[in-house]
Amino acid sequence: MEIERGAGKIAKTLRVMLPDKPGYLGQLSSAIGMSGSNIGDIRMVRIGLTHNTREMTIYVDSEEHLEQILENIGKVDGIIVEDVIDLVHQRHEGGKIAMKGVRSLQGISDIRKIYTPGVATICRDIQRKPDLAQRYTVIPNQVAIVTNGTAILVLGDIGAVAGMPVMEGKAVLFDHFVGISGIPILIQNRDPKVIIETVKNIAPTFGAIKLEDIAAPECFEIEDALDELLDIPVLHDDQHGTAVVVLAALLNAIRYSGQMLSKATIGVIGLGAAGMGISKLLLAYGVKEVIGSDLKEDAKTMLDAAGGRGASLATVMSEATIIIATTGCPGLIKPEMVRKGQVILALSNPNPEIDPELAMASGAAFAADGKSVNNALGFPGLFRGALNVRARRINNKMKIAAAKAIAVCAEEGELVPSILHPDVHRSVTEAVERAALESGVIKPWE
Amino acid sequence: MEIERGAGKIAKTLRVMLPDKPGYLGQLSSAIGMSGSNIGDIRMVRIGLTHNTREMTIYVDSEEHLEQILENIGKVDGIIVEDVIDLVHQRHEGGKIAMKGVRSLQGISDIRKIYTPGVATICRDIQRKPDLAQRYTVIPNQVAIVTNGTAILVLGDIGAVAGMPVMEGKAVLFDHFVGISGIPILIQNRDPKVIIETVKNIAPTFGAIKLEDIAAPECFEIEDALDELLDIPVLHDDQHGTAVVVLAALLNAIRYSGQMLSKATIGVIGLGAAGMGISKLLLAYGVKEVIGSDLKEDAKTMLDAAGGRGASLATVMSEATIIIATTGCPGLIKPEMVRKGQVILALSNPNPEIDPELAMASGAAFAADGKSVNNALGFPGLFRGALNVRARRINNKMKIAAAKAIAVCAEEGELVPSILHPDVHRSVTEAVERAALESGVIKPWE
Repeated sequence: MEIERGAGKIAKTLRVMLPDKPGYLGQLSSAIGMSGSNIGDIRMVRIGLTHNTREMTIYVDSEEHLEQILENIGKVDGIIVEDVIDLVHQRHEGGKIAMKGVRSLQGISDIRKIYTPGVATICRDIQRKPDLAQRYTVIPNQVAIVTNGTAILVLGDIGAVAGMPVMEGKAVLFDHFVGISGIPILIQNRDPKVIIETVKNIAPTFGAIKLEDIAAPECFEIEDALDELLDIPVLHDDQHGTAVVVLAALLNAIRYSGQMLSKATIGVIGLGAAGMGISKLLLAYGVKEVIGSDLKEDAKTMLDAAGGRGASLATVMSEATIIIATTGCPGLIKPEMVRKGQVILALSNPNPEIDPELAMASGAAFAADGKSVNNALGFPGLFRGALNVRARRINNKMKIAAAKAIAVCAEEGELVPSILHPDVHRSVTEAVERAALESGVIKPWE
Repeated sequence: MEIERGAGKIAKTLRVMLPDKPGYLGQLSSAIGMSGSNIGDIRMVRIGLTHNTREMTIYVDSEEHLEQILENIGKVDGIIVEDVIDLVHQRHEGGKIAMKGVRSLQGISDIRKIYTPGVATICRDIQRKPDLAQRYTVIPNQVAIVTNGTAILVLGDIGAVAGMPVMEGKAVLFDHFVGISGIPILIQNRDPKVIIETVKNIAPTFGAIKLEDIAAPECFEIEDALDELLDIPVLHDDQHGTAVVVLAALLNAIRYSGQMLSKATIGVIGLGAAGMGISKLLLAYGVKEVIGSDLKEDAKTMLDAAGGRGASLATVMSEATIIIATTGCPGLIKPEMVRKGQVILALSNPNPEIDPELAMASGAAFAADGKSVNNALGFPGLFRGALNVRARRINNKMKIAAAKAIAVCAEEGELVPSILHPDVHRSVTEAVERAALESGVIKPWE
């Protein structure tokens, strides 16, 4: 499960004509808000004599939900919905990424430098001294974004090709935030052996491997095997990217309860990719005790092996002072299960395990849902930092350093900063570089 | 073997101070030319009172060759070589390609459209109707450029990673000429089964597969197997891209000899990837007889099976009226082997099987070497055309249409146009589209 804001919602843009008088925009917004939809950007597109036209992006649950909203807007006299525009589909036409040449190519003499005959010199140099590939090719700046499509967002096992828009989205963020060349690789296969073998075979093309949206428990076997086989960082984002951002959020959340992480008992509800990644990182951070529950006994056994303790949901809720839930089950945590003074992060999207307000009303010292906990805060800087210093792997020290860097960037009152925070990705990158250098995971130059 | 201009040469840029008087540039050029080096761009970089400084790109065989040229320049009074600049290495620093986002990304609402939550809508649509991946992802615009590095340019088996600069070069040309997103995939393995299996597993990511610089005979098995397994075009460029450009050159060359291709006996010397690709395409074109020679008996048997006839070098030279040589053996064709009226294309680079002037002096009606025969004339339009119409494969009709389109773009007296010809790639694309539509290799929309 990946924790990302409003992953279950559909964005629609309404083109609306409103009388140019005070109060109408308010009435419109209320009609939408009362129908249970969130409002995004509002843009003025035409100013008329008596009416103005605005485009307003709203987030709905379904086409039926949209119909109901349009009906509610229809009840407000004077407001006319001209069109419902699907900007999301428009923005996906033809895909969102492209492999581009980054050198000027003006004439034949440019081609003779970057292609034949010039290129032969570079090939020969690399043949003679393989490490020169780090300098004269894009390889050390390329990250494979590998999925088999078994755990795409909250959608689940929809297949690798249907997951491609997400992989392209990751590549866009890699490019935009940290200048990494992210290459989606779709492997339509559930067998961990096939994925391991395939990624191993194409690995020379990349500086690192990002595993993405692969379901548990296969994701653990795949990551462990590739980590063992390859000399470059391999990171399953849904485990460790998520864990980094959750740890960042937790570092800020505990300020509200006066707890120390190292002395806390933390309960993790749901031990899929995210839950296991979080548990392992918390143990590495030095948390005294991590107890976790899951419907699958195997998952609890895996937590035992990692140094935590498998337990029932009731035990977790009664023993832990900090609760982190990543189950995908809305409403799993009942108000009567909450203990006074608990910190509760109910991270499942779009609907949390317990509504934060309800958790607070039931005695929690602090509660939040997963809306702001976005993987895209972590993975760009994690990979950029690791690539910059030629790290062999992304270890726990680097992940913890990244979490601290993210936490520091959050404004007062926020758990984590926006992914568009001006410093966060550079800050994570530098923290990861330092941690890598300090922990000796750097490949020497040959 | 790939046939590309001057693939064995090294480009160097001399920064030279010359007295501002007539004759010095001439003396400099002569000193370089007499040393056996070609001269590329000459650029004025500083105009002084008594001296001007120019940057001059030259193509040399080796560092020793460069030393000798510098020595010869040193003998010209008044000319000072300030520096030898390695523009080729400069242009390869950090690689030549990058995966870029192609949508505007200004703020959080853009991210919410192309990433979560917006992207979930697109994923669900594709899950419901898989063909929508053709519309809403980059997949149908992506071509994998797959190599195992066993036959890189004229360098041979230097390994996949050392071949990366060539693969990046192909991706640059794909982007620049036809807007295809070309993704290098390096598989460090000689076993055809590994390559077949690996490419099959990652194939859902791509609209087509371009096999590149894979040695014969493995290249034949790999291409055949993938063509059988996959529902998208699979093309080994060193066979078919080369064949298309050679056929284009031949269509113009025969004008000098008054022969008709369909009634000619064509001799192909060297039956590696290029030679076999050429032979097969000539037979598909309707050439009466193709006879071929190779040091390996297996290669000749393969030609027999393809409808041609294996023979000795002597037989080929005495029976064929058109000779195409792709052996990589400079000087293989002796003057006394040339028969009166033959058309000879001695295509090995950088040094041909027989010097064209010597061939003409020995009685050939027309002779040329491989300097202008550049694969990059063919592959961009071949793939663009095939992708545009959703062709399942790139068949012989499409290849022949491409060859004709290239031939037509050549200026009077040229065999083929420059790869920077303003119309050639669009023209090839359109010809390939038409041929695909006419030959029924189009995938229907579901």
